Amino acid sequence: MQSISMFSESIEVNLRIGPDIVDITQELERLIKKSNVSTGSLFATMVGSTGSITTIEFEPGVVEDLKQAVNRLAPPGIEYEHEKAWHDGNGHSHVQAALLGPSIALPIRNRQLKLGTWQQVVAINHDNRPRKRPIEVTVTGTTE
Amino acid sequence: MQSISMFSESIEVNLRIGPDIVDITQELERLIKKSNVSTGSLFATMVGSTGSITTIEFEPGVVEDLKQAVNRLAPPGIEYEHEKAWHDGNGHSHVQAALLGPSIALPIRNRQLKLGTWQQVVAINHDNRPRKRPIEVTVTGTTE
Amino acid sequence: MQSISMFSESIEVNLRIGPDIVDITQELERLIKKSNVSTGSLFATMVGSTGSITTIEFEPGVVEDLKQAVNRLAPPGIEYEHEKAWHDGNGHSHVQAALLGPSIALPIRNRQLKLGTWQQVVAINHDNRPRKRPIEVTVTGTTE
Repeated sequence: MQSISMFSESIEVNLRIGPDIVDITQELERLIKKSNVSTGSLFATMVGSTGSITTIEFEPGVVEDLKQAVNRLAPPGIEYEHEKAWHDGNGHSHVQAALLGPSIALPIRNRQLKLGTWQQVVAINHDNRPRKRPIEVTVTGTTE
Repeated sequence: MQSISMFSESIEVNLRIGPDIVDITQELERLIKKSNVSTGSLFATMVGSTGSITTIEFEPGVVEDLKQAVNRLAPPGIEYEHEKAWHDGNGHSHVQAALLGPSIALPIRNRQLKLGTWQQVVAINHDNRPRKRPIEVTVTGTTE
Repeated sequence: MQSISMFSESIEVNLRIGPDIVDITQELERLIKKSNVSTGSLFATMVGSTGSITTIEFEPGVVEDLKQAVNRLAPPGIEYEHEKAWHDGNGHSHVQAALLGPSIALPIRNRQLKLGTWQQVVAINHDNRPRKRPIEVTVTGTTE
């Protein structure tokens, strides 16, 4: 057991009209280097209620398949109560983001994320317009 | 890099027949104040297998839209294997809760949650009867 | 407020053709004992882009119901873009895993996981072939 330290920083991601999925793995790796943490955890949370974070194999096919799947979960074309009051056309965006969830916890080993070979961390915009979204990143662990 | 401290406490949430969605943001903010943490992370986990935690814009329209969406994910009206053995009518509740997940990781900055302006933390009861549910909250970070 | 320590270890889970769901609660409890942490958090993350982690009541009915539900979320039988390039038959696996998410944050109280009586932690293989998957576990907390 070793005592641990903490580092935090906000990154900003430019996202196109949803569903848009961008690979943020390299940005997170950069923060881990900056934090000097060798073993620990990275927590990333989407700031904003129409975005989410998860992991996928970031290749064009899976990216497209996931876009279609989130649009099946909460289709843009059906009726939403949110629309009746706000008329901003993004009722489905709120629902999609809530179902996927805004946060992720990832392991840091040997000064980098420990993920599968074909596993990348992605930020998703579910909104019906482009968004510049902050993602808050907190790194905790040992620096030895 | 600074060394970090920890604070933990359990809150209890009264939830009506599911899907019921309640805003727990203020309760979490209260615990952050109590913890004296200025920068770090808050982890909240639903204790019980028919509840979940996520974030939404907590306005009546989105709340209703999310209720309908979780009931599309695992409709109350279809056949569940769980029912055949247990006959408690909540097969859909277990499935809904597992799909959304029991836990969330949130950033603390400047002694408060760093969320979007229209983003609240919610606890969801998926069960077919009212539940009083504990949520375990752990706060870690620097107190400076 | 007390300063906190960290422990990390990788466990390996043998999973059959997906959707396969296995109870990893006892393995996690074993690591908590080994870590000597009495109060804190356990973070578990699936390494690999066709697996996920959540909690359920681990009884055969719910296990079967959840398998059927994830196959409704992203059915094995429909067309996936991933297939067109890779022909490995697991387009649905990638989508299912991304929707459920690879990570979980769990509370440790009194030297064990604080979960509901009928709530277990499970690893899910969504892939169309058996997988031996590492799960990275990080435990942080006070040891007093």
